Amino acid sequence: MDSPPLYRKLATHYIDAIGAGSLKPGDRLPSLRSLMRMHDISLSTALQLCRAMESEGWVEARDRSGYFVKRPRRLAIAAMEEPATHVAPDPAQYVGIHAKVSDFVARRRQHEVRIDFSTARGSPELYPGEALRAIMMRLLRQKPALLTTAAPSRSLNPLREAAARRGLRVGMTLSPDEVLTTNGCIEALNLALRAVAQPGDTVAVESPTFYGLLQVLESLGMRALEIPTSPQTGLSIEALEMALDAYDNIKAVVTVPHLQNPLGSVMPDAHKERLVALCEQHDVALIEDDTYSELLDMDTPPRAIKSWDRTGNVIHCASLHKILAPGLRLGWISAGRWHSRVEMLKYTQTRSNEELSQWAAGEYMNTGAFDRHLRRLRDHLRQQREQAADAIAAHFPSGTRLNYPPGGLQLWVELPDHLPSMTVFDLALRENIFIAPGTLFSNSSRFDHYLRLNCGWPITETIEAGLRRLGEIASECAALQRKAA
Amino acid sequence: MDSPPLYRKLATHYIDAIGAGSLKPGDRLPSLRSLMRMHDISLSTALQLCRAMESEGWVEARDRSGYFVKRPRRLAIAAMEEPATHVAPDPAQYVGIHAKVSDFVARRRQHEVRIDFSTARGSPELYPGEALRAIMMRLLRQKPALLTTAAPSRSLNPLREAAARRGLRVGMTLSPDEVLTTNGCIEALNLALRAVAQPGDTVAVESPTFYGLLQVLESLGMRALEIPTSPQTGLSIEALEMALDAYDNIKAVVTVPHLQNPLGSVMPDAHKERLVALCEQHDVALIEDDTYSELLDMDTPPRAIKSWDRTGNVIHCASLHKILAPGLRLGWISAGRWHSRVEMLKYTQTRSNEELSQWAAGEYMNTGAFDRHLRRLRDHLRQQREQAADAIAAHFPSGTRLNYPPGGLQLWVELPDHLPSMTVFDLALRENIFIAPGTLFSNSSRFDHYLRLNCGWPITETIEAGLRRLGEIASECAALQRKAA
Repeated sequence: MDSPPLYRKLATHYIDAIGAGSLKPGDRLPSLRSLMRMHDISLSTALQLCRAMESEGWVEARDRSGYFVKRPRRLAIAAMEEPATHVAPDPAQYVGIHAKVSDFVARRRQHEVRIDFSTARGSPELYPGEALRAIMMRLLRQKPALLTTAAPSRSLNPLREAAARRGLRVGMTLSPDEVLTTNGCIEALNLALRAVAQPGDTVAVESPTFYGLLQVLESLGMRALEIPTSPQTGLSIEALEMALDAYDNIKAVVTVPHLQNPLGSVMPDAHKERLVALCEQHDVALIEDDTYSELLDMDTPPRAIKSWDRTGNVIHCASLHKILAPGLRLGWISAGRWHSRVEMLKYTQTRSNEELSQWAAGEYMNTGAFDRHLRRLRDHLRQQREQAADAIAAHFPSGTRLNYPPGGLQLWVELPDHLPSMTVFDLALRENIFIAPGTLFSNSSRFDHYLRLNCGWPITETIEAGLRRLGEIASECAALQRKAA
Repeated sequence: MDSPPLYRKLATHYIDAIGAGSLKPGDRLPSLRSLMRMHDISLSTALQLCRAMESEGWVEARDRSGYFVKRPRRLAIAAMEEPATHVAPDPAQYVGIHAKVSDFVARRRQHEVRIDFSTARGSPELYPGEALRAIMMRLLRQKPALLTTAAPSRSLNPLREAAARRGLRVGMTLSPDEVLTTNGCIEALNLALRAVAQPGDTVAVESPTFYGLLQVLESLGMRALEIPTSPQTGLSIEALEMALDAYDNIKAVVTVPHLQNPLGSVMPDAHKERLVALCEQHDVALIEDDTYSELLDMDTPPRAIKSWDRTGNVIHCASLHKILAPGLRLGWISAGRWHSRVEMLKYTQTRSNEELSQWAAGEYMNTGAFDRHLRRLRDHLRQQREQAADAIAAHFPSGTRLNYPPGGLQLWVELPDHLPSMTVFDLALRENIFIAPGTLFSNSSRFDHYLRLNCGWPITETIEAGLRRLGEIASECAALQRKAA
């Protein structure tokens, strides 16, 4: 690959300085003369540098005074409102989500997707493919029997050990025996729900929540009760408490405490503690989906909900899919007092996972490289989220709202004037741009004017242009809707 | 490894000739003098050769006449009787099988298992670990993105293509799009059952059948109706027809047409055709578990049941676990008219399988090495089954019955006088020998005096001694039981 031109390298240097806070909004960039002297560059290179930063929205030119760092555009966008928590909707059986998702997938198939903002997934370059490959090749040499020997049930392996050990960092004391490997977090959720509830039972979920969970509930014949959820602090404990008092057939609560999907909310520790106590008091299982914790912008994630569990009432589910290797299907479950039942269901549903990928992932997690990878991944995702949020602030219609989340790979966007995101979806799809409309994230129509945007890919010119075009489409729709009103 | 002594090589040569039928029971071995001249060996080597074959039961010495090929001992053992087919038992919900299996597993855990006859599984050396490893290492070099990229749903890969192409050999015309990869055959069965039946529905199964299927039914809350099954021809079509007439809530039939587990029966083509028509007529889904076909002692397996399917009413499930690589969890399903529903359930339950192992297995299956491996595997298993059957004939109590199956890696043994195999299980376990008692293979007590023995391991001296000891234990139990009667 060709090395970027000199002005580009210097622009990246100054953009990093803005990102790191050493250049703040309102600060002046060095003058053209200073740039030429400091970096030993020509006037034309210095001008290219300043104009590139201007056109990307990092700085603005003020007559005769030079270039000044702009306030990030994303700071201009309003935050979402808190949901009303005094009413919980009726429990509803999800008989429609498969149809919705199938329709969504079928429409997509009719187009060659050019830009995919719909799936919550990181770009392959963000993951340590080279290191994993080296470990796997060594394992194939050292342990060829991994391919020809069925994994003995209950055999320990480095993944189960690594999962247990990393659990300590977030307050969970688990032995590797209490960690069962699953085919991703989705199998862990299936097993957890099958262990604690029966078809026809009601399960409390966050609202909005990811459609994968709604599909699991529909496929298991369970009813979902959507609990109001704050874009800042996650599941409303008050609303859940009212629901538990009102309905006596709730068998489980499913929550994503950190970087909730799609909101990006983070539950405060005090809420987690109350949630554990509340579920115990009502004899309702608490299922914690911990898929995104390691993507929070901090070196050690906050305490897991399960760290407050003293009775085995919390089932902890996690996954490596978004943080280590999207090509592996590795998750795990620590099922507390349902451990034996989950172990039986896992055996009955898919038997043990293949050992090779568990060994490879586990051995990698047992090195310092894993934490270095996670820091790098978080840095990339933060930059990508910032750039995407800036583009939304610049190009989406006024009145658009956004909760800028403290980590993760997606943004949840509220369109103004209850503009239906399915309209934006349809128009964008014609231009081969794919988004996840809010209607997929609830059985109600409350989120029909929301959309979820994946920021897992580097914001290239194509992606940037896609975001701009999305904003234009939404603005056109908004203008039409206002005219019609 | 040291090369075996000369007499041993020659003994193997003559034993192979007996196996291949070029030396038949009653034939005379060449005289000592001929052996010395033909192989240019000493008298003592010729004597060692003959004595080794005698002590292993292949030949017998007749005074002054030389050594004669013996009739295999296994031919002396009586075949099992056909089951009564005029009554089908009541449908029963399997509320007990998990408890039975858990008890069985828990007892095993209390002992260090020295010889395991219980699991239906081949020894690692029987599988092409070296070739698979080489393919996998090449794939890791050529396609590193397999680890870092989530498999796009519906993406084709060599496994789906190989499965579709091999289906042609057994009469199924499938496109790779109609083949979905699963986590082993057990996930395929879960998906098939969830697609066609609901909790509370009844499913017709063979009797006896493998406890894995009974566990799936119990975990899904389905009722099982056991249909009498012939040790020779498999599921009784007459008995099934009566059951379908008698009960109107049967939603599916599950059958293993080739090398039924545990019986080893093989369903004649005419039965398959009738079965397909019968299920269509009653609007009952037909689920074909094709795990063992490639282990039949023939170069191309018989036609799949699905080859008669014209309406999409047959769901075909298969696996590589016992035929290619026990360390991989690869199976597949072709679900006919339930394809979309199965695809949705698979996505909802575990998402797509990992791609790397699918590519490795599929690329291997696309070479001639796969058929060569299968021939070699069948040869080894045939020898192992023969030796195990001979040992049973020699050491088990008189009245023991056995249906010698035309392939596969297990033997189903009927003890005389309704001797409970749980007693044999308990006594054998004390000596760290592990068997699968018949009680696990039915919800009834009809098979309590049967046991299943795995022959997937080479019959070493230890294994041979284990079989002898099992026979002695059974004989002691039989003697005690007769005394008590």
